[in-house]
Amino acid sequence: MEDVQSHTPQVALNIDRVGVRELKLPLLVRDRSHETQQTVASVDLGVDLPSAFKGTHMSRFVEALEQWNDELSYQSVKRLLLTIKKKLGARRAYAHLCFPYFITKRAPSSGSSATVSYECRLTGELDDSGQSFILEIDVPVMTVCPCSKAISREGAHSQRTMVRMRMRMKTFSWLEEFIDIAEASGSSAVFTLLKREDEKFITEHAFAHPTFVEDVVRNVAQRLLEHGQMEWFSVEVESMESIHNHNAFARIERQLTDNVCP
Amino acid sequence: MEDVQSHTPQVALNIDRVGVRELKLPLLVRDRSHETQQTVASVDLGVDLPSAFKGTHMSRFVEALEQWNDELSYQSVKRLLLTIKKKLGARRAYAHLCFPYFITKRAPSSGSSATVSYECRLTGELDDSGQSFILEIDVPVMTVCPCSKAISREGAHSQRTMVRMRMRMKTFSWLEEFIDIAEASGSSAVFTLLKREDEKFITEHAFAHPTFVEDVVRNVAQRLLEHGQMEWFSVEVESMESIHNHNAFARIERQLTDNVCP
Amino acid sequence: MEDVQSHTPQVALNIDRVGVRELKLPLLVRDRSHETQQTVASVDLGVDLPSAFKGTHMSRFVEALEQWNDELSYQSVKRLLLTIKKKLGARRAYAHLCFPYFITKRAPSSGSSATVSYECRLTGELDDSGQSFILEIDVPVMTVCPCSKAISREGAHSQRTMVRMRMRMKTFSWLEEFIDIAEASGSSAVFTLLKREDEKFITEHAFAHPTFVEDVVRNVAQRLLEHGQMEWFSVEVESMESIHNHNAFARIERQLTDNVCP
Amino acid sequence: MEDVQSHTPQVALNIDRVGVRELKLPLLVRDRSHETQQTVASVDLGVDLPSAFKGTHMSRFVEALEQWNDELSYQSVKRLLLTIKKKLGARRAYAHLCFPYFITKRAPSSGSSATVSYECRLTGELDDSGQSFILEIDVPVMTVCPCSKAISREGAHSQRTMVRMRMRMKTFSWLEEFIDIAEASGSSAVFTLLKREDEKFITEHAFAHPTFVEDVVRNVAQRLLEHGQMEWFSVEVESMESIHNHNAFARIERQLTDNVCP
Repeated sequence: MEDVQSHTPQVALNIDRVGVRELKLPLLVRDRSHETQQTVASVDLGVDLPSAFKGTHMSRFVEALEQWNDELSYQSVKRLLLTIKKKLGARRAYAHLCFPYFITKRAPSSGSSATVSYECRLTGELDDSGQSFILEIDVPVMTVCPCSKAISREGAHSQRTMVRMRMRMKTFSWLEEFIDIAEASGSSAVFTLLKREDEKFITEHAFAHPTFVEDVVRNVAQRLLEHGQMEWFSVEVESMESIHNHNAFARIERQLTDNVCP
Repeated sequence: MEDVQSHTPQVALNIDRVGVRELKLPLLVRDRSHETQQTVASVDLGVDLPSAFKGTHMSRFVEALEQWNDELSYQSVKRLLLTIKKKLGARRAYAHLCFPYFITKRAPSSGSSATVSYECRLTGELDDSGQSFILEIDVPVMTVCPCSKAISREGAHSQRTMVRMRMRMKTFSWLEEFIDIAEASGSSAVFTLLKREDEKFITEHAFAHPTFVEDVVRNVAQRLLEHGQMEWFSVEVESMESIHNHNAFARIERQLTDNVCP
Repeated sequence: MEDVQSHTPQVALNIDRVGVRELKLPLLVRDRSHETQQTVASVDLGVDLPSAFKGTHMSRFVEALEQWNDELSYQSVKRLLLTIKKKLGARRAYAHLCFPYFITKRAPSSGSSATVSYECRLTGELDDSGQSFILEIDVPVMTVCPCSKAISREGAHSQRTMVRMRMRMKTFSWLEEFIDIAEASGSSAVFTLLKREDEKFITEHAFAHPTFVEDVVRNVAQRLLEHGQMEWFSVEVESMESIHNHNAFARIERQLTDNVCP
Repeated sequence: MEDVQSHTPQVALNIDRVGVRELKLPLLVRDRSHETQQTVASVDLGVDLPSAFKGTHMSRFVEALEQWNDELSYQSVKRLLLTIKKKLGARRAYAHLCFPYFITKRAPSSGSSATVSYECRLTGELDDSGQSFILEIDVPVMTVCPCSKAISREGAHSQRTMVRMRMRMKTFSWLEEFIDIAEASGSSAVFTLLKREDEKFITEHAFAHPTFVEDVVRNVAQRLLEHGQMEWFSVEVESMESIHNHNAFARIERQLTDNVCP
């Protein structure tokens, strides 16, 4: 059968990235507490395409992913990228995996434990000059408004606030390290299971530590600067303000090495 | 050209509803303060299809909508439904319009005014036995947790909470009436523009009126029962709990006449 | 500590359903090919609340779910509902689980196999009069337009089309049975991995079986009527028309027993 | 009342951007055919925040937006950015507006006209060194697969495909210019209203011009390179493959001047 993809294209431009998006599959992820955990992922895969070829061979991405069948780690993503690069005859390969990551968390007073879910994303890119990994994780926290607290006779508005960290890593780090960083940076962590004594504890703790989105983003950024295992990071904090129907946000981005921007 | 839609289908089953979905267009809506306001809508249109016909004529829905070109009211939706029923040779016609509705709201202490947006949906259905209108509106409010307040030395968690009202109307009512009902039923209304004196006012007011989702849904239901202009309603309240990453919800549904369920 | 939830509410109305929404957790699901498969779920849980109580005890839903720790089946959902009903002192219990379900599917010509994902939802409700299960599954198929094919010198527009089945079950049935029904009802099934010979096969097969959304909804409805293991069903077909930026849809709903509507 | 925002923060880090997100309001947009058109927008606004200040004054963004009350153009966004910069005492101001843009389009054969909607985004940024505008527009087109067509006895799969253009502009250009570019780059434009003769025309035209996502992204990129009024662009094409439940995508990004990357 004719290989239309190998024809010469009418417009001779290099394509930066071409591939497949939103392949869904079960995924085994390395986990600090249990060695591995089962989750599911949505996966994007891509390569560059030189100006000489009309099209890439999309089915080879799916084959590479099906054969991969590995637990998620930097090493296994590197293996996937090398396979894609080779199978597709490309100079650059790209993989992006989104998945929920589960942790069993204990309530602060009763010690009751339950599952908390965090949205994570891992992006790997590989070419002849080397490889890069960007790790992303979204951690919900609680914020109590310092202004509302200072000016009101009683109370202060609070809300669920999302901390979104994005980091170009130098070496492997556990997702749990970044969850800890985010949860230490708001007014309180959030939990799935809270008994009455826990609700009292969290309310009092949060009201003793009021934070603006500006405070949270600085607290996280400071801890990421101290962490030392990244070349670049961006952290964005967005609070679903309980007194508004719009959100507040703050963002800090830092280049920690002389490498190019992501 | 062949009219394939008029062929006899292989499977002779009546189709309850067939049509088009997510047509987007500018829309003029009747408004209590300014007579009309400009917004945009996403529109679904449908009819029944008897077992004798293979297909409906989808382009006629678009023609009916383009010719409609009217400000949104119960009368104008009735005209649209009659046109569709006739153009498509149907026994039943259906229209569903989703649109943001804008209100200028004054802050409670400074009186500063700004635009607030509410998601609304109007569903009309018409057949030989008559017509029905279901009106839906989503109103965000603030809730302060009564339990957290009662058990904590200081503070109480609060959050943005969505009140979703769904009502089969007997007669026309302004959207503003239902916005007022929802906003009176939580711990506080939410606003777009709040100066510091307003933030103080709202915080103190909300902490003086703590509400569970159960309280809010009952308060709204009670007011809808008193309103009198509906045959049936459903109200659902969902709070984005600031101490959890999951939501709490409560729902009350009431049939007020002997009509069939929606 | 004070049990504010047990207080008498200000408005004495029964609440139809109150609970938690969007709890995320890993889930083991029974599977025709491999006995069980690992996936993740988003779970809603609820109970009724009599007019005498101000609030329900939200943490008990989470405890029930954490203790459940079972593979998904009708029996295990029944156990979860019984636990919730008892723990919360309720007359009615409700559980709703959404999860992707994975199947390994072989391409029609090359036999190459790859993972396909289907969105599923299981809703269980239980009170003293018994229990009910509603099973939902979304199956993508391909449709080739019969009108476009009949009137054009060459070709016909095709598109991805979603079949959404919703069924109140009498007894257990495998999800695979409904996937088969939907995939046999469009112009072609869709696949994750297709080699060139498969793409040829599917294109030719789909063009030999052109279907409107009306055809697909009737084909599915006919097969569900013949299936016999349900009390009620609703099937909706929605095609992302490739010649429009809006969708076409068709819906058939049938009550097969004398039971009340869902 | 205390101005908590002016306090010294605990962590002395500059914040790159802080502000409000998803303010919704009616918007008047300049339009090539009718001078202006009414639509609605979701707006994000932000500024930088030096390390000396604990918080920004969020209500001032809302005030600036309420006072703005202008039709959307580069000049009016510049006025909004200058107001925000001044009101907030900032060095950099940022505005991001998302809105549907409506065009009346004639069917290719019957000449029947109807409304088509395109998602647009305008991002403006301003500091002492100048200002920049990034314009984004999403244009749906139809693609017929060249491989499927070449290898099959009959037919070829087609699908709705989204072209997403992102451009840093040197000068003002009409949105219509980019809609034309995208619609000329796929197998066919899509339409809201098509009579049978139009469906025949489009099917035949699309099958005479089969395109991969790779072809579409190159066609658009070539036309953007020739357009000449931009410093940088990125174009991404994503097709909702009708034979798969995943998408195919391709992306080209080009820097056309020596300015820094966006």
